[in-house]
Amino acid sequence: MIDISVSNVMARGVETITGDETAAGVARRFAGEQIGSLVVVDPDSGTLTGIVTESDIIQQVATNGDMETVPVSTFMSAPVVTIESTEPIHAAADVMKRHSIRRLPVVDSGQLVGIVTTTNLTHYLPKLRNTILRERGTNQNR
Amino acid sequence: MIDISVSNVMARGVETITGDETAAGVARRFAGEQIGSLVVVDPDSGTLTGIVTESDIIQQVATNGDMETVPVSTFMSAPVVTIESTEPIHAAADVMKRHSIRRLPVVDSGQLVGIVTTTNLTHYLPKLRNTILRERGTNQNR
Repeated sequence: MIDISVSNVMARGVETITGDETAAGVARRFAGEQIGSLVVVDPDSGTLTGIVTESDIIQQVATNGDMETVPVSTFMSAPVVTIESTEPIHAAADVMKRHSIRRLPVVDSGQLVGIVTTTNLTHYLPKLRNTILRERGTNQNR
Repeated sequence: MIDISVSNVMARGVETITGDETAAGVARRFAGEQIGSLVVVDPDSGTLTGIVTESDIIQQVATNGDMETVPVSTFMSAPVVTIESTEPIHAAADVMKRHSIRRLPVVDSGQLVGIVTTTNLTHYLPKLRNTILRERGTNQNR
């Protein structure tokens, strides 16, 4: 059971936004909903076009961007690195490390089904340890 | 080897700041140094007084704080939750989950020695899996 899939740790009901929203609007949603990213979708097709994170907003502050007018589409990360829900969590961790990112939208057959973050994976760590210890105990009793 | 200690995964040489720095100054350091938090220390005693993260800056944007004047001391998180470097990583994960935080300054005998984040723990996950698989292989060969 060490190779559990992304579907077991991801958050479902991922929050989305359109590219014409402003940096200040994103900041208000981050603060209000206590989230650290929003997946950017095309309002007509629903296609995933990018992702905007806390770091992107910080970058706007650091470069004196006009928070109330600068649209998400100009500073979001695109294209988005994604993963399938059936992939094992260690693969998600590998992808995050390789791309230096902390959040991975989960896409199955072109459909956005969730998001997995370093926080989700960290919260799973103690459970993984318990599974291993239990397994060891079982082995010793054989 | 599943109970490796925080000292094995933490980042050393943690970046600090004083409480009189501004939100905009913090944002510029975050962007310039590609970091997501700064530990706030007293300039005279060197005592750890708080921590400021990306989320704190986002909160300032969301509430229309004056980024160029609002001092860190007014919006940092304090007191800071910390951990000792000899604690196992699953304990760090537990503390993060319980406090809903992503970064833990590492303090030994009152001295700031590093910082451990959900990113550090996530990057360790594939290595942990390999260790387990190797251990299983050894058991089977007995």
